[in-house]
Amino acid sequence: MLNFSFYNPTNIVFGEGQLQELDNLVPKNANVLITYGGGSAKKTGLLDRVNAELAKSERTVIEFGGIPANPRFDVLMEAVKVVRDEKIDFILAVGGGSVIDGTKFIAIAAPNKEYEGREREIMNFGFAGVPAESSVPFGTVLTLPATGSEMNNGAVISDGEDKLVVMSPLNFPKFSILDPEITFTLPKTQVANGVVDTFIHTVEQYLTFPAEGRFQDRTAEGILQTLIEIGETTVNEPENYDARANLVWCSTMALNGLISAGVPQDWTTHMIGHELTALTGLDHAKTLAVVQLANWKVRRAEKREKLIQYAERVWDLREGDDDERINQAIAKTEEFFHSIGMATKLSDYEIDADIIDRVVANLEKHGMTQLSERGDVTLEVSRKMLETAL
Amino acid sequence: MLNFSFYNPTNIVFGEGQLQELDNLVPKNANVLITYGGGSAKKTGLLDRVNAELAKSERTVIEFGGIPANPRFDVLMEAVKVVRDEKIDFILAVGGGSVIDGTKFIAIAAPNKEYEGREREIMNFGFAGVPAESSVPFGTVLTLPATGSEMNNGAVISDGEDKLVVMSPLNFPKFSILDPEITFTLPKTQVANGVVDTFIHTVEQYLTFPAEGRFQDRTAEGILQTLIEIGETTVNEPENYDARANLVWCSTMALNGLISAGVPQDWTTHMIGHELTALTGLDHAKTLAVVQLANWKVRRAEKREKLIQYAERVWDLREGDDDERINQAIAKTEEFFHSIGMATKLSDYEIDADIIDRVVANLEKHGMTQLSERGDVTLEVSRKMLETAL
Repeated sequence: MLNFSFYNPTNIVFGEGQLQELDNLVPKNANVLITYGGGSAKKTGLLDRVNAELAKSERTVIEFGGIPANPRFDVLMEAVKVVRDEKIDFILAVGGGSVIDGTKFIAIAAPNKEYEGREREIMNFGFAGVPAESSVPFGTVLTLPATGSEMNNGAVISDGEDKLVVMSPLNFPKFSILDPEITFTLPKTQVANGVVDTFIHTVEQYLTFPAEGRFQDRTAEGILQTLIEIGETTVNEPENYDARANLVWCSTMALNGLISAGVPQDWTTHMIGHELTALTGLDHAKTLAVVQLANWKVRRAEKREKLIQYAERVWDLREGDDDERINQAIAKTEEFFHSIGMATKLSDYEIDADIIDRVVANLEKHGMTQLSERGDVTLEVSRKMLETAL
Repeated sequence: MLNFSFYNPTNIVFGEGQLQELDNLVPKNANVLITYGGGSAKKTGLLDRVNAELAKSERTVIEFGGIPANPRFDVLMEAVKVVRDEKIDFILAVGGGSVIDGTKFIAIAAPNKEYEGREREIMNFGFAGVPAESSVPFGTVLTLPATGSEMNNGAVISDGEDKLVVMSPLNFPKFSILDPEITFTLPKTQVANGVVDTFIHTVEQYLTFPAEGRFQDRTAEGILQTLIEIGETTVNEPENYDARANLVWCSTMALNGLISAGVPQDWTTHMIGHELTALTGLDHAKTLAVVQLANWKVRRAEKREKLIQYAERVWDLREGDDDERINQAIAKTEEFFHSIGMATKLSDYEIDADIIDRVVANLEKHGMTQLSERGDVTLEVSRKMLETAL
């Protein structure tokens, strides 16, 4: 097992009816900014319910809507101005990963004077973390189980064709309300995206090479097995509480530092996926499904031991030789994605070979030339994956 | 899935050589009290190493040794006096569950004026939590993987024949250093105790009735499978780093709120075990092994569905009818305990039937008359378990 630190102070409040805890969780007498996205929080009545809870104590509440999927730097800067002008001292993100990620940027950009006028620099530090003194405290009401942003300190922000990571130990949500019922109104395609996003997050922290992280491996396998069990149900029966509750909890657990602690990680699929989304607008999760399967096919030898473990433990494949079981495990993963309506080829989205040079160029521009758990995914290997994904 | 809150802000610093992080983790210029137990921390040189790390910055350091296994109220009160007299503002617990549990009591008793002179009352609130304003911040250097106290906010304190729970949201360690190498010098029997303690903690949060906690179930099963895989190795090869690292991480994960979130729990075995330890001095873990097997035999019908799941998933028992598989799973658990040198009957410890009335009387005295996940373990059922355990 590798050495690690694990620290995650987010208070999770999980279950039906938990919105009523808001009045206890958000500081009294605060100037609150509610951040939200494209309007579904308004349409479904959720924003009204949130406002009603916040009104139970003395607070000033301002709303900032319109944070887009793949939250954009320029939009977020408008919110930063509101936080500064209105002396906001608590932010409540009501939304999915994009709104929460955007809120993390706002929270760290607004109060740190040294970045005023050059907030773009906050996006330069990546996984090293933003050097900053403080952030505006924030909580979340999760509407879309997918990214895990509700219980981690990372965010992905878009600026033109660039998708950049913003991290900071100051950026853990103070609390996150996870009420599966709030997610019942999501369109099927977004639920399927959430299942796949959670699946791939898990795979990227698990399917590398053996490293004696037995708890971590089995916990990751448990998430994958759960997703396989409840995937079709939660996509097709949105009001099935238990299926959705399991999706919500798995998506949070898949990216809160738990399953990555002490084991190697491979974020190749995410990095290539980010470039695809930035260039084509294709949903994040759809890029992941496409790239992950190609990744396994191209790096089958490097991931051999873990692919066999995945075949045995996640898919219960006990017959046949190792290569057959690996083939079957990859095929079953693809079938699972199909079963929830997720296509697995770039051509399914009418993206053709022209994209490859552009993605590879942007990977180079962003320094993504030695990806994977071994640092052996060069631009040439990424190119091969994209060719395999066509 | 049941509604739940999950909050755990302890910073875990895991791995070989992590003791050198102490100087970064303990506040500079602090008046530090080091708490420790019976002297093995001194004998092995660990205390010297801890002091050397703390001396890297300006700090005052005082030591308080002699906290016994099953930490006693009267001993802890001496430490409370030291904290008050010496204006201690950080406590560093160097030890296992007893030292850490004791430190939690000290941390909450010392600064809260309302309990001064009547500190015994702190032990009355049990799982409801001690109403208190503050606690002295503390960190831990773990020497014995077993209780999980290094990453939770509970403690068990002894006062004569009473074993009482002290809980408080103020009582999470600020940090815990988990270096598997520090545990290499433990005697075999204590390692075996740690394996069993971790196993039973997990079982008590898992083996109840199905409640659609799929992540929680699989994570619990992962801990159990890991313990079964590494148990004999880590007892017999104390310097096998990977086996020990897996024990250490599992023991922390087994009781930090993760696997209990949103599912029923059954602490019957612990409650009966506590009474046995208080009356006979038998090691906590040894009481657990004895009582747990009896618990399953007596409440086999109530736990039927989960016993079958346990048989299938943890022991891979796929042949035979349900009853046969339950029998096999119980037998295999007992064999596993034996394989690490853990006896499974009261008579193995020369405890005879005379103990039963005394345990039942103390259960009654402590209000333990409706134990289990269904509240159906009356004193009569507890008696039956003890008879089965003879």
